[in-house]
Amino acid sequence: MRSVLAVGKLRYSRYKITKEEKTMDKILRLNMRDQTISCETADEKYQYVGGRYFTSMKLNEEVPPTCEPLGRHNKLVIAPGLLAGTAAPTSSRISVGAKSPLTGGIKESNAGGSFARKLGSLGYKGVIVEEKPHKDEKGWYMLLIDKDGAHLESAGEYAGLDNYDACGLLRKRFGEQAGIMIIGVAGERQYSTASCAVADDDGIPCRHAGRGGMGAVMGSKRLKCIIVDATGAPDAKYVDREKFTAHSTEWYKELVAPRKGLTQYGTVANIQAMSQIGALAVRNFSLGSYEDYEKINHETIYNLIMERGGNPSHACYKGCAIRCSNVYNGPDGKHLTSSLEFETTALFGANLCISDIDTVAGLDRFCDGFGMDTMEMGATFGVAMEAGLCQFGDIKGVWKMVEEIKNDTVFGKALVHGCTVAGKILGVLEVPAVKGQSLAGFDPRTIKGLGVTYATSPMGGDHTFGNCLPGRPGYRECNQNPPPTTQKEGQAEWSKDMQILVAVCDAMGFCMLAVGGVLATAEHSAQLLSFKFGKEFTTDDMIQMGKKMIMQEVEFNRRAGFGDGQNRIPEFIMETPLASNGEVYDVPQSELQNFHYSGFEVTA
Amino acid sequence: MRSVLAVGKLRYSRYKITKEEKTMDKILRLNMRDQTISCETADEKYQYVGGRYFTSMKLNEEVPPTCEPLGRHNKLVIAPGLLAGTAAPTSSRISVGAKSPLTGGIKESNAGGSFARKLGSLGYKGVIVEEKPHKDEKGWYMLLIDKDGAHLESAGEYAGLDNYDACGLLRKRFGEQAGIMIIGVAGERQYSTASCAVADDDGIPCRHAGRGGMGAVMGSKRLKCIIVDATGAPDAKYVDREKFTAHSTEWYKELVAPRKGLTQYGTVANIQAMSQIGALAVRNFSLGSYEDYEKINHETIYNLIMERGGNPSHACYKGCAIRCSNVYNGPDGKHLTSSLEFETTALFGANLCISDIDTVAGLDRFCDGFGMDTMEMGATFGVAMEAGLCQFGDIKGVWKMVEEIKNDTVFGKALVHGCTVAGKILGVLEVPAVKGQSLAGFDPRTIKGLGVTYATSPMGGDHTFGNCLPGRPGYRECNQNPPPTTQKEGQAEWSKDMQILVAVCDAMGFCMLAVGGVLATAEHSAQLLSFKFGKEFTTDDMIQMGKKMIMQEVEFNRRAGFGDGQNRIPEFIMETPLASNGEVYDVPQSELQNFHYSGFEVTA
Repeated sequence: MRSVLAVGKLRYSRYKITKEEKTMDKILRLNMRDQTISCETADEKYQYVGGRYFTSMKLNEEVPPTCEPLGRHNKLVIAPGLLAGTAAPTSSRISVGAKSPLTGGIKESNAGGSFARKLGSLGYKGVIVEEKPHKDEKGWYMLLIDKDGAHLESAGEYAGLDNYDACGLLRKRFGEQAGIMIIGVAGERQYSTASCAVADDDGIPCRHAGRGGMGAVMGSKRLKCIIVDATGAPDAKYVDREKFTAHSTEWYKELVAPRKGLTQYGTVANIQAMSQIGALAVRNFSLGSYEDYEKINHETIYNLIMERGGNPSHACYKGCAIRCSNVYNGPDGKHLTSSLEFETTALFGANLCISDIDTVAGLDRFCDGFGMDTMEMGATFGVAMEAGLCQFGDIKGVWKMVEEIKNDTVFGKALVHGCTVAGKILGVLEVPAVKGQSLAGFDPRTIKGLGVTYATSPMGGDHTFGNCLPGRPGYRECNQNPPPTTQKEGQAEWSKDMQILVAVCDAMGFCMLAVGGVLATAEHSAQLLSFKFGKEFTTDDMIQMGKKMIMQEVEFNRRAGFGDGQNRIPEFIMETPLASNGEVYDVPQSELQNFHYSGFEVTA
Repeated sequence: MRSVLAVGKLRYSRYKITKEEKTMDKILRLNMRDQTISCETADEKYQYVGGRYFTSMKLNEEVPPTCEPLGRHNKLVIAPGLLAGTAAPTSSRISVGAKSPLTGGIKESNAGGSFARKLGSLGYKGVIVEEKPHKDEKGWYMLLIDKDGAHLESAGEYAGLDNYDACGLLRKRFGEQAGIMIIGVAGERQYSTASCAVADDDGIPCRHAGRGGMGAVMGSKRLKCIIVDATGAPDAKYVDREKFTAHSTEWYKELVAPRKGLTQYGTVANIQAMSQIGALAVRNFSLGSYEDYEKINHETIYNLIMERGGNPSHACYKGCAIRCSNVYNGPDGKHLTSSLEFETTALFGANLCISDIDTVAGLDRFCDGFGMDTMEMGATFGVAMEAGLCQFGDIKGVWKMVEEIKNDTVFGKALVHGCTVAGKILGVLEVPAVKGQSLAGFDPRTIKGLGVTYATSPMGGDHTFGNCLPGRPGYRECNQNPPPTTQKEGQAEWSKDMQILVAVCDAMGFCMLAVGGVLATAEHSAQLLSFKFGKEFTTDDMIQMGKKMIMQEVEFNRRAGFGDGQNRIPEFIMETPLASNGEVYDVPQSELQNFHYSGFEVTA
């Protein structure tokens, strides 16, 4: 890592870590107003707190819920999962949290890659970026973290670059071992759809904490990127290393076999599955099934990947048991995008009636490079098409909108703050969003449990908050099947179960795909924590943790001004039947509004 | 009034009133889906309910608070004040209510003109417009009401017209005695800033229920205008006509003398007064005082009006005791706009640093003709200037924005949903709005009591919800002076008083200017109601009424998903001192958030 550069009149604080601090749990704090870096011992209460649990707890403690999301009182909290950096499988998610400029509520968005492992192994519970530079400050900065401490440097030379280019230069400069979190031009411009990109092990900026505009918050603080180099970090500590490792190895094996489909095809296999049951976001959430689904399904993508010399089973970080990611080359055989996944394919493909998979991949590449959430942009383009800015299926029309965005015209600006704002401007009532954030690629009329999650998540329309997909029972009914997805009864309970399990997952830093939402999440977590910390954790402890996490997020939103009436599904989804199967969303509104009043009681 | 025209395939319902119905309190209901009109006896509980009391009560009863504001479940409720159509002075306000597309909460906006008197004298408690036509319906409609009943006609020939032109044609067709409520192109396009214009006695569409996008709700139902002809209406009924008339005459006299300034100059006299104390919205709410205030103050306007043959003391309806309105001619001596008022002058003038009063008048004319809220548009242009779309004071730049709006470009659309949406798109944090609605022309840093009103009003940043201006004591301290406007203590109490008194005012249909907020409002109301209805009303009854009204509005919002955290002043107003006097907004947030938990207890 380079030494401090003196740039302009600004002083950069260098924080040199002490020997004692090296091995302790600590929090790194970067104040962007006076450019100071400090480090504090993590309070004992954070000992078993990581990932989303940490980001949400810190936001509750330190951020005034009524503050301006892009103002100086908001904080960006970055935290590795509690087990990141350990031998636990698929445990390398990095959580990024802040008050969201998209929803106005609390937000945590997590991403893969190896950033979390590096930060975790250096002993950081979290990095907190607070305050923002003076209005006149036009510089961009980067935070560098390594075993010796942390310091700030100018990042001016990377400003305005595509994430691909910037990551290439950063990797050249800091080496392959450096973890990179970066914002693109979208984040610099503080678009509410801006992501925090995390480079994968190839240095490709394809893992994104995409949802809720975390990149805009980072941009508001003029922090372009964070580099973390864990070279020389101490080994992970375990009270019972042997058992931890053995358990991890066992679990790793368990994970592999039932996920062979994911390994071969990735998440995109859901395109066909969802289209067939009428649960796919098609034509701005109006159809449910997509007649051209075969042109964008997993087999088509797999065959193209194989033909063009890509990689269908790529890992977002070394040692993932699932390797759901892929490397997708263009018709010229050159790398086009990494990880063409279900959500992107659903929302840029089926939702826009675009059956040309290279276009979908190209839009994915654009968003990764520009630093935007593909999901929110897919939903937004759908709303723009609903408004008639171009026709559904009009590829040229979409690229024209992309040009407007690149050029930062007012037209472009109207599209980059998500589908809710775009719908407002364009006079569209069919806006597939909750609390300002777009739904995922699953139509909730057919998967009603997921609709409960969309409606009640304090994060806005967020499938990762409790992904009630067919065949994923919750913990209370772990030996039973969940209710049929189109049945309105029992969905709220199912969603509660899934939300609690996913919360545990997000606290540990596990990938949701490793878990699938069965009780195993909590069981494995409890055992691994016990081995690591030498304190006995039960499955119920984990469930209590999940409940606490959710209720602290709900509490943040309550203080921010969210009432229960915000827990609702868009009116058109409640009233306009899906073309595929005639379903409307009919889980009673009262169940959505009263959602948090039962089932989240913390009993321990 | 003409007979029914059969237009196209649509059937128009004609409602013929019965003899009994003529003299009873009734509600007219227009269903725009099946184009039926019906009439119902007003329930006994509405006997003493009028104006905003009626609109808010009906919205609470009939509109699902979580509904889409421009969807079929919202209703437009139009209600004359309880004393409209009587001999009471300045009692001709018409209330227009709906769930607001601007704020997402309950809204009532009221306007002058003689529409309310006509509707009131026909015995209508209110007109409720519900449902909306099928999506494919592209026609526009007008509702015609007279002593014989009501019917629907095509209004296709008025669609797309400027309100001035449309009102001219309508007046020609229906005569001078016809009252007109109409939406402009902005309402047809469902802009969240669209107003319902009410023609004055000259047929000029210069009185607007401007705030909160009531015109967009009317537009969503494809109702272009409502014509009411009260010819042949029965005389107002009074249990004690003599006392009612004597009291009204006495009050009329009382009103005149202390309001001579208002009669001569209108509300615009506040430009100078507010600039001098640093309480004027200047340069997007940053300065407080305007160096060029003399170019847009009351004397300048008065002199121009006199020079150019206008009228400085015009009444918005016949028989107003105050006549605060004016007729402002352009440099060519021809009518340019009617009623150049404080809010418009502050927000198009000082707030944009435009000192050319003819430009301000021209913008007012544009908004009146296009059917938009001048206040929200002034604040929005200020935000656009803050973003650098054009410079402050750039007159050509403003007219260019107006062109974009007229042409309905995406650029234009970005500006027509108010300053909150525009600020979001343009990346401006200095957005002078609460709950999605812009503040008025008074800077709350210097008038902190009004800031409490802005923050706590369920209608969004609304000065008319409790206009705490210097020298207007509340009822609890009616013999004392209110706190100094820059003192942070005591402002919440003052605002509560004013909110309650204004609520009474809005229920009666009184103009806020007649009242000024002193206890007299409630006293006069109680006496006039007693004489009219033969039931004794006390001042306290009126105060209880005001409290009930406010709490039912708060309750609607609560059910719509508003939490207490929404009661807040924009961060920049709390933190960036006003240039004129260094004031920030420092009334504690807790007082704003807890505002409705005390002082609104209904004791009767």
